[in-house]
Amino acid sequence: MPDLQSGRTIDAALCGELRDQLRGTGPLVQCITNSVVTNITANILLAVGAAPAMVDIVGEAGPFAGVANGLLCNTGTPLPEHRDAMREAAAAAGEAGTPWVLDPVAIGALPHRTKLAFDLVALRPTAIRGNPSEILALAGGTGGRGVDSTDAPEAALDAARGLAERSGAVVAVSGATDLITDGRRVVRVTGGDPMLTRVIGTGCSLGALVAAFLGSGSEEVTPLEAVTAAHALMSVAGEQAAGVGPGSFAVALLDALDAIDGTALAECARVTEN
Amino acid sequence: MPDLQSGRTIDAALCGELRDQLRGTGPLVQCITNSVVTNITANILLAVGAAPAMVDIVGEAGPFAGVANGLLCNTGTPLPEHRDAMREAAAAAGEAGTPWVLDPVAIGALPHRTKLAFDLVALRPTAIRGNPSEILALAGGTGGRGVDSTDAPEAALDAARGLAERSGAVVAVSGATDLITDGRRVVRVTGGDPMLTRVIGTGCSLGALVAAFLGSGSEEVTPLEAVTAAHALMSVAGEQAAGVGPGSFAVALLDALDAIDGTALAECARVTEN
Amino acid sequence: MPDLQSGRTIDAALCGELRDQLRGTGPLVQCITNSVVTNITANILLAVGAAPAMVDIVGEAGPFAGVANGLLCNTGTPLPEHRDAMREAAAAAGEAGTPWVLDPVAIGALPHRTKLAFDLVALRPTAIRGNPSEILALAGGTGGRGVDSTDAPEAALDAARGLAERSGAVVAVSGATDLITDGRRVVRVTGGDPMLTRVIGTGCSLGALVAAFLGSGSEEVTPLEAVTAAHALMSVAGEQAAGVGPGSFAVALLDALDAIDGTALAECARVTEN
Repeated sequence: MPDLQSGRTIDAALCGELRDQLRGTGPLVQCITNSVVTNITANILLAVGAAPAMVDIVGEAGPFAGVANGLLCNTGTPLPEHRDAMREAAAAAGEAGTPWVLDPVAIGALPHRTKLAFDLVALRPTAIRGNPSEILALAGGTGGRGVDSTDAPEAALDAARGLAERSGAVVAVSGATDLITDGRRVVRVTGGDPMLTRVIGTGCSLGALVAAFLGSGSEEVTPLEAVTAAHALMSVAGEQAAGVGPGSFAVALLDALDAIDGTALAECARVTEN
Repeated sequence: MPDLQSGRTIDAALCGELRDQLRGTGPLVQCITNSVVTNITANILLAVGAAPAMVDIVGEAGPFAGVANGLLCNTGTPLPEHRDAMREAAAAAGEAGTPWVLDPVAIGALPHRTKLAFDLVALRPTAIRGNPSEILALAGGTGGRGVDSTDAPEAALDAARGLAERSGAVVAVSGATDLITDGRRVVRVTGGDPMLTRVIGTGCSLGALVAAFLGSGSEEVTPLEAVTAAHALMSVAGEQAAGVGPGSFAVALLDALDAIDGTALAECARVTEN
Repeated sequence: MPDLQSGRTIDAALCGELRDQLRGTGPLVQCITNSVVTNITANILLAVGAAPAMVDIVGEAGPFAGVANGLLCNTGTPLPEHRDAMREAAAAAGEAGTPWVLDPVAIGALPHRTKLAFDLVALRPTAIRGNPSEILALAGGTGGRGVDSTDAPEAALDAARGLAERSGAVVAVSGATDLITDGRRVVRVTGGDPMLTRVIGTGCSLGALVAAFLGSGSEEVTPLEAVTAAHALMSVAGEQAAGVGPGSFAVALLDALDAIDGTALAECARVTEN
C-alpha cells in the first residue's frame, strides 16, 4: 500500500525530469573518497552539472557537510585522517539534514574499512550504493575480492531489502541490472555496458552522482527516486559511450554525461518497478 | 614611473618568447598539491615541456625545494603531513631563491587551509594565483563556496593590488579575463573557454604552469611577465581545445599545450596592460 | 650454463603466450603507489585484463598481500602510513609467496623513500623496476633529479646485474631499450615511443604490469620471463599509440593495451637475449 510520498511511479520520464533539475540547481557535492578516483569523480560531477568539493580532512569535513547539498563517503584507501573525517562529516550531515551516501568499497575482510562502514551505517546514510559483494557484507554476509563483484545483483536483493529496512537508507546494488530498494519498493535499472567495469572509478563516481541527485531534488522527490535517476543516467551514458577501447570510453563517457539531457534520458532509460 | 626592470611592455610577443624559453630549459617543478589534480597537473607540466616532481612529504619537501626550479603550494585536500611539508618547502624555497607559487584553494571558511594560506603568505611567495573569492579571502575578505568563484575578477582588483603590495607577490585572479598585478602594474589576459571550468584541475594546473614559467626565465624576466605568460598559454590552449564535450576537451587541452609554440602564442594571446 | 628452469628462450613468441595467459587468469594486483598515478595505474591494469586493488593502509595492506596474485610497492609520495603499509605488505607477500615488485621512484637524495627502498630490497622483492638513475642509486650509486632518468640504461647494466645477484630479484632498467636481468641472463626489449615519457605514470604503471605478469603465469614461468613480457607489452602499446599529442596518446595507450593480444604481441615485440 504505497503512501502519498512514495506512491509516484518511478520511470524513465521521472528520471529525465530529475536530470534537468540537477543541471538547473548545480548541487555542491562534498566527496570523501579514495585516492584512485578523486579525479574522475570530480569530472563526472562537473560533466552532469554539479559542483564537486573534495573536503576530506578533520576539522573541515564536518563544517563543510553542513553547507554542502550532498555528501559522499567512500571507504576505498581510507587513511586514518579520512576515516575520522568521514565520521565527522556524516554526523554533521545528519544534523544539518544534508543527504549523504555511503559507498562501502571492498568491505568484508579488510578490517579498517569494514568497521568504518558499519559505523557509518549507524549514522543513517540517505543511500548506500555498492556491488553485490559489498551489500552482502554490509548486510552481514561475507565480502568479495577487492572491488570486484563476485555475486549477481539479484543474489543480494534480500540482503539489500533487509539493510534498507534496518538502516533507513535506500540501498542500490550495481550490476548489469541495478537493483534499488527502500526496503519496500524495488526498482530495476537495466542497461549500461560491460566497459563500465573496465574503467576505474565509474562505480565510485556513481556514488557521487547519487549524492548529486539527492542534493538537487525539490522536497517532493524521494531518495528512492533520486537514487534511481542517478543509476539511469550512468546506465544510458555507458551505452552511448560504448563500442570503443577503454581509454576512448572514459572520454566518451564524460562527453555523454554532459550531453544527455532530461529528454534524452526519458527516451533511453530502462527503469521498471515490480 | 616604471623602473628599468619592470618597464618592458608585456604583450603577446613577450609571452611567446617566454613560452619557447620554457620548452628550452625544461624546468623541474615541485608540486605539493591536492589529491584530485596531481595527475592532470603533472600531465600539463609534461605537455608544456616542464618536468613535474610531486615531492610532498616532511623531510623531503624542503631539501627538494632547494634544488627545484620552481615550487607550487596548493591548499586543496591538505592532510596534516602536507600542511607541514608546504611550510617546510616554502621556507626552503625562500632561502634557496627558488620561485614559488601559492594557490589558496577554497580558503575563507575552512579553517586548516585558511590558516595555512596565511602562514604561507608570510613566507613571501613569488606569486599567488586564485579565483576572485580566494583572493578576496586572502586579502581579508570572505571566501566562496568550495573552489567555485562567486565573484568576477574585476571585483577583486583592489584586493589583489593590496595583497601584492603587502606580500611582495605577483597576484593573479583567474576568470574570463584574468587580472595579474604586482601591486603597481595590472595586466589582463582575455580568452580561454568556459569549458576550462568544466574539467577539474585546470585552475590548479595553471598554478603549476606559473611555477614553471617562473622557474624557466632568464634573470631579466620579471615575475609579472612570467605569470602573465602562463595565463596566456592556458588561455590560448583552452580556446584551441574548445568545441567538444568535457572528456574530449581535457584530452585536446593537453594536445594544445604541447602543440602551441612561441610563434603560435604570440599570434593568439590577448594580453593588455593599462 | 643455463639450468632447466631458466633455460627456455625468451622471445616475442613467449611474450605473446604470457600476454594471453594474463588475460585468461585476470590476476588481482595490489598496488601501494604514489598519488599521482593511482588512476592511470588502475586503468592500465584493467585495460590488460588484470584486477587492480589499491589496498594501501596499515592493517589492511598485509592481509591483502596474502591473498593478492601480485603486489606493487612504489616509493613516490610516500606518506608515513604508506611507508609502513609497504613494509607490512612486502613482509606478508614474502610469507605467502605472493610475487611482488619494487619501483624505487626518485630514490637517491630524498631520505625517506631511499631508506624505504633499501628496507624493501632486504625483504627480497621478486622484481625491481626503475630508470637507470634509480637502479644506480639502489645499487649503491647516486640518484638523479626526480623521476627523470639522466643516465642511459646500458650505463646501469653492471649495477643492475649486481643488484639482481645480491637481492635475488629480477632487475629491469627502463629506457629506449629496456634491460632486464636476473643477474646471469640479460634480455633487451627495444621499442616504445618517446611519448611514453610525456605522459605521467607510464613507468609506474609498467611496475604494476610487471606485478600482473608475475601473478598470472603458470609455475614454469620464470620471473625473468614475466618481467620481460610486461616490458614488451608496454613497448608495443607505446608504438601503436604514437603519432599524436600527449593527451590523445594517453587515451590511445589504454586502447592499445586492451587491443593487443598474444598474437599481436608475438608479431610486434622486439625481444633479444645475449
